[in-house]
Amino acid sequence: MNSNVPFRGIIAYPITPFTADNAVDLPTYRRLVERLVTSGSHGIAPLGSTGVLPYLTDEERDAITEATLQQVAGRVPVLVGVSHLTTTGVVRHARFAEQAGAAAVMVIPMSYWKLTDDEIFRHYDRVASAISVPIMAYNNPATGGLDMSPALLKRLLEIPNITMIKESTGDVQRMQALRQLLGEDVAFYNGSNPLALAAFAAGATGWCTAAPNLIPELNVDLYKAMQRQDLATARQLFYQQFELLQFIVAKGLPRAIRAGLQLQGQEAGELRAPLQPLSKAEQQELGSILERVQLPVSVG
Amino acid sequence: MNSNVPFRGIIAYPITPFTADNAVDLPTYRRLVERLVTSGSHGIAPLGSTGVLPYLTDEERDAITEATLQQVAGRVPVLVGVSHLTTTGVVRHARFAEQAGAAAVMVIPMSYWKLTDDEIFRHYDRVASAISVPIMAYNNPATGGLDMSPALLKRLLEIPNITMIKESTGDVQRMQALRQLLGEDVAFYNGSNPLALAAFAAGATGWCTAAPNLIPELNVDLYKAMQRQDLATARQLFYQQFELLQFIVAKGLPRAIRAGLQLQGQEAGELRAPLQPLSKAEQQELGSILERVQLPVSVG
Amino acid sequence: MNSNVPFRGIIAYPITPFTADNAVDLPTYRRLVERLVTSGSHGIAPLGSTGVLPYLTDEERDAITEATLQQVAGRVPVLVGVSHLTTTGVVRHARFAEQAGAAAVMVIPMSYWKLTDDEIFRHYDRVASAISVPIMAYNNPATGGLDMSPALLKRLLEIPNITMIKESTGDVQRMQALRQLLGEDVAFYNGSNPLALAAFAAGATGWCTAAPNLIPELNVDLYKAMQRQDLATARQLFYQQFELLQFIVAKGLPRAIRAGLQLQGQEAGELRAPLQPLSKAEQQELGSILERVQLPVSVG
Amino acid sequence: MNSNVPFRGIIAYPITPFTADNAVDLPTYRRLVERLVTSGSHGIAPLGSTGVLPYLTDEERDAITEATLQQVAGRVPVLVGVSHLTTTGVVRHARFAEQAGAAAVMVIPMSYWKLTDDEIFRHYDRVASAISVPIMAYNNPATGGLDMSPALLKRLLEIPNITMIKESTGDVQRMQALRQLLGEDVAFYNGSNPLALAAFAAGATGWCTAAPNLIPELNVDLYKAMQRQDLATARQLFYQQFELLQFIVAKGLPRAIRAGLQLQGQEAGELRAPLQPLSKAEQQELGSILERVQLPVSVG
Repeated sequence: MNSNVPFRGIIAYPITPFTADNAVDLPTYRRLVERLVTSGSHGIAPLGSTGVLPYLTDEERDAITEATLQQVAGRVPVLVGVSHLTTTGVVRHARFAEQAGAAAVMVIPMSYWKLTDDEIFRHYDRVASAISVPIMAYNNPATGGLDMSPALLKRLLEIPNITMIKESTGDVQRMQALRQLLGEDVAFYNGSNPLALAAFAAGATGWCTAAPNLIPELNVDLYKAMQRQDLATARQLFYQQFELLQFIVAKGLPRAIRAGLQLQGQEAGELRAPLQPLSKAEQQELGSILERVQLPVSVG
Repeated sequence: MNSNVPFRGIIAYPITPFTADNAVDLPTYRRLVERLVTSGSHGIAPLGSTGVLPYLTDEERDAITEATLQQVAGRVPVLVGVSHLTTTGVVRHARFAEQAGAAAVMVIPMSYWKLTDDEIFRHYDRVASAISVPIMAYNNPATGGLDMSPALLKRLLEIPNITMIKESTGDVQRMQALRQLLGEDVAFYNGSNPLALAAFAAGATGWCTAAPNLIPELNVDLYKAMQRQDLATARQLFYQQFELLQFIVAKGLPRAIRAGLQLQGQEAGELRAPLQPLSKAEQQELGSILERVQLPVSVG
Repeated sequence: MNSNVPFRGIIAYPITPFTADNAVDLPTYRRLVERLVTSGSHGIAPLGSTGVLPYLTDEERDAITEATLQQVAGRVPVLVGVSHLTTTGVVRHARFAEQAGAAAVMVIPMSYWKLTDDEIFRHYDRVASAISVPIMAYNNPATGGLDMSPALLKRLLEIPNITMIKESTGDVQRMQALRQLLGEDVAFYNGSNPLALAAFAAGATGWCTAAPNLIPELNVDLYKAMQRQDLATARQLFYQQFELLQFIVAKGLPRAIRAGLQLQGQEAGELRAPLQPLSKAEQQELGSILERVQLPVSVG
Repeated sequence: MNSNVPFRGIIAYPITPFTADNAVDLPTYRRLVERLVTSGSHGIAPLGSTGVLPYLTDEERDAITEATLQQVAGRVPVLVGVSHLTTTGVVRHARFAEQAGAAAVMVIPMSYWKLTDDEIFRHYDRVASAISVPIMAYNNPATGGLDMSPALLKRLLEIPNITMIKESTGDVQRMQALRQLLGEDVAFYNGSNPLALAAFAAGATGWCTAAPNLIPELNVDLYKAMQRQDLATARQLFYQQFELLQFIVAKGLPRAIRAGLQLQGQEAGELRAPLQPLSKAEQQELGSILERVQLPVSVG
C-alpha cells in the first residue's frame, strides 16, 4: 500500500470509555481496540467524534494515542484524530501522534466562529508543515460546524502531505463531485454510515465507521462484496445492517455504541457528561435491531 | 412484465416544443418522441416537469397525450403525467390518459398551499378510484412544493392501483429508507439524474430522466452494466455522463434539453414564457460538456 | 394618497367560498367582502393565496374580480391578484383587472421550474407594459416557490408602474434590508402575519392579511397604535392576537379562516379539493384561541 | 434592579486581544473594557463568542474574568461567559466567576455531539446547583451547534437561578414565541444585532452586543428612544447603524470589531489562529461604513 495513502477498506472508530469518577478507562479502552483489530478492521482511528475527542484534555488525548499504538502494535495502520479549535493546538497533537507512531492524522476544522476558506487553508498548511505523516482532511458540517466545498478540498490537496479526504455530509452527490473534481487517483473516504453502499459504488477507498464495534463481519463483508463486484450480495448485506447504521447515527455514536456493547455483554465504561446513556426504551429498540441484524437474509 | 408495474430501465421524458406564436408544436414533438423510442429507451413519459406540464392548457395536454400514444404505437409503454392543482383536474386528465391508452399515469401532488398527509391521501384515492391503470406516485419537493415522507408513501401503496413510486428528493438515503420500509418487492424509480448510479445500487427499478434526449446510449448502457453487475464499467459510464447530468439539472431540464438538442442539430422549438433560452455562455458551456461526454474514457 | 401607491394600513384578503357542487359561491363571497369593508380594512385584495387563486379557472377569476369591485364600490381601493404560471396568463388577467376598476394588481412569480432573475424581470416587464395601473411585486417563497432577493426587487422597481413590494419570507431582516436598499420612500408591505409588529416597527406601509376576516378591530387598532407611536399599547394588542396569527398561518389561511368564520356564525362555503376542512380537534383549538383573543389584556 | 435579573439595556461584549506571541494581552483588554464602561454600556460581558471563549485555556479564562471585575470595579454589573463542552468544565468556571464577583454567568450548551433536551437540562441543573448567582441561558445554534426550543427554555426556567434568556437565532418570531410562552415577567435578551429594533419592539429587556466597541452612543440612544416610545427616532437610529450591524455579524465579531477599533485608532491586539484579520478590501469597506454611520440622518 502507498505510504501516503495508508488506509483502505474498513477504518474502525473506538469509543472512549470513562470510569465512574470521570477518568479515561484505559484498560477497557485497550480491550475494545483489541476487539476491533482481531475482528478484521483494516485500520483503527482513535480520537474521532466517536471517541469524544472534544471532551478530552490534552493529557487524556496523549494517553489514548499511546495506548492505541501500543495495543495495535503494527498489525493495522492507526489514524489519530488531532483536531483542536486553535491552530497551535492541532500542531501540538499532530506532533505527538507522529512521534507515537501514527500512520496518518485526521484533522477536521472545528469551528466556533465560522472560518473563511483562507483561514481553513492556513490552518491545514501550518499543521502540515509541522509533521511528515500524511493528513486526512475531514469534512463534517454536522459536528464540526463548517462545510468545506469540493473546491476548497481540492485546494487543500495542493499541500503535499494532505493525501486523503473524508466526506461526512451524508450526500453522495458531494462524494461524486469530489471524485469528478479530483480525479480517480485521489483517495476519498466515506464517513456517513447510511451511505456505505452508495459511497463504495461511487468509488470510495474506505469507510470510516464506528459500526465494527458491534457488527464487524457485516461491515467487512460488505466491503469485500463490493470489491469483487458482487452487487446483489453487497446490497443484501447493506440492507441487513442499514437499520442499525441509521440507529447509531440518529442516537449519537458514543451513546449508541456503548449501549450496543453492553447489550453484547462487553464492558464499555461510562459516558462523560453532558452525554447521558440511551433511555431504557432506546436500549430495547437497539436490542431488537441487533437481533434482526443477525438473522440470515435471502439475497434480494 | 407485470401489468401493474409496466416500467423498468430508462424512462425517457420528452420536452414540449412550442411554435413561434406560442402554440404546442406537435410535429416537432412527435419527431422528438420517435427519437427517444428508436434510441433505446424502455418507456416514454410525456407531460412531466420536462414537458412543462403546469404551463399547458387542458386542451394542449390532451393533444400531447394523444400524439404520444399514436407516435409510440405500442413499441414501449407510455407513462402520462396527469397532475393538476385540483383533485377534479387530476381525475379529468387521468381518465383521458387511460382512454388514450396509457400504460400508467404519474401524479405529483402539486401544491400552492401545503397539503396535509390526509389531504394528499384523499387526493390520490379519488384519482385512483376513477381509473383502472396503475399510478406512479411522484415525490419531488423542489418542483411540487410538497415532501411526501416514506411513511406517507407506504400509506399510499394501500390504494390498490398505486404500484410505483418515483423519488426525486436527490437524497439516496430516502430511497434506501423507502426500500427498507416497503420491502424489496415494491418498485421505486429514481427521478434525480445525479443519483443514477447510487439509485441503481440501492435497488431502483428504473430511472426517470430527460437525459435520453441527448445521450441515450450512455443512459441505457449504464442501466445494462448495473444489470449484469459490472460495477467498474457502470462507474466509468456514470462519471462520463455525470457532468452533463449536473448541468441539465442545474439549468432546468426544459431549457437545457432544448439547448442540447439544438447543439446536436435537432429541431427543438421555442420555450414558453416565462422560461427563456440559456444564455450564450451557458450554451457554450453545454457544448463543451457534450463534446467531453462523447470521448472514450478508460475504465476507473 | 399617491395614486401610484394606493394602499396603506390593513389590506384584507377574502377567502373564496365554494358551493357543495364545487362552484364559486358568489353571493357568500360578496357578503364576506362587505364585512371586510364595513369592519374597517383600508383595502381589499381578492385572488390572493387566501383566495386560492391557483385553484381557480380563468372564468372563475374574472367573476370574482368583477364581484369584488361591484361590492366594494369604491369605498376602499381594490388590489387584484393576477398571478399565473405563464406570462401570457398574467397579462390576460392583469388587463381584465384593470378594466374592471382595480386600483392596482399583485403579481407573485409562481414557479414550477425555478426562474432566473432575468426571466422574472422579463415576466414583470411584459405584464407592466400591458397595463397602466400600478403593480405590487410579491415575494413569498413558501407558496410561490421562488425567492426574490432584495437586489432583484430593487431592479424590478426600475419598471415604472411597479411601485409596491410585498414581503412574505417571514424574516424581518429581509424587510430591513429592503428598506435600507430601496430608501424610505419605497412602500413595502408585510405579508407575514406573525411579523405584524416588527414590520410596522421597521417601517412597513401596510399589512396584507387574512386576519380581518376574524379579528378586524385588533388588526386596525394595532396599526393605529403604531401610527401614533404608542408602542406599549401596540405590543399589548400584538400579543393579544399573536396566537391566532400563528394558528392561521400554521394551518393554512383558507382552511383556518373558513373554520373561524363558521365558529363566528358566518356562512363560509366549502373548500375546493385537495383542501379539506380542519379536523374537529383543530376546530376546537381555534375556538379556544378565538375566545382568549377577545379577553381584555392589561398593558405589558 | 432585581438582583435575580441584574441586566437591562446595552450589555457590551469586549473582544480578547492577543500579543504577537499568542498570549492574552491583559493591559490592552483592560483599556477596551474601560472604554465600554465609560461610553455608557449598562453591563459588561467578558468571555462571550466575541471574546473567543472556546479558543482560550482555563487559565486564560480565569485571568480575563479577574481583570474584568477589577477594571469594572462595580460601576456596572458583569456577566461572565462560563460555557465549556463538558459539564465539569462549566461548573469549574461558574464557581470561579461567582467567587470573582460576577453578577451572573452566561451558559450556552456548546455541542459537538448534538445533545438531547434531557442532557441539556441536566447540564444546566448541575451548573445551577453549584453556584448561587443567576444564570442567563443562551441559545445560539449558529455558534453553539444546538437549537433550544422555546419549550426547552421554559423548562430551564424551572431551575431557580436560571432567570434570564438570551436568544440569538436571528428570528424575531422566536423571541415573540418565548415572550408568549413565558409571560411578560421573564426577561429575554436579544443577541442578534440586526434584530435590535424588532427585539425591543417585541419586549426585550436588553441587547447583548459587541457593537458598543465601535458605536456606543448609537446603541445606547436606540435603547433610550425605545424606552420613551419615540419610535420615529428609534427607527432612524436603527437604520443609521444597521449596515454596520450587518457587517460585523457577516464578517465575524472578533475579526470585525478588531478591525473597527484599529480604524478608530485604538489598540486592539492580534487575533488567535485560525482566525485571521479582515482583508484589505474588507477593512476599506468597514472604513466606509464607519464614516457613513457618523453622518447625521434626517428622521424617516
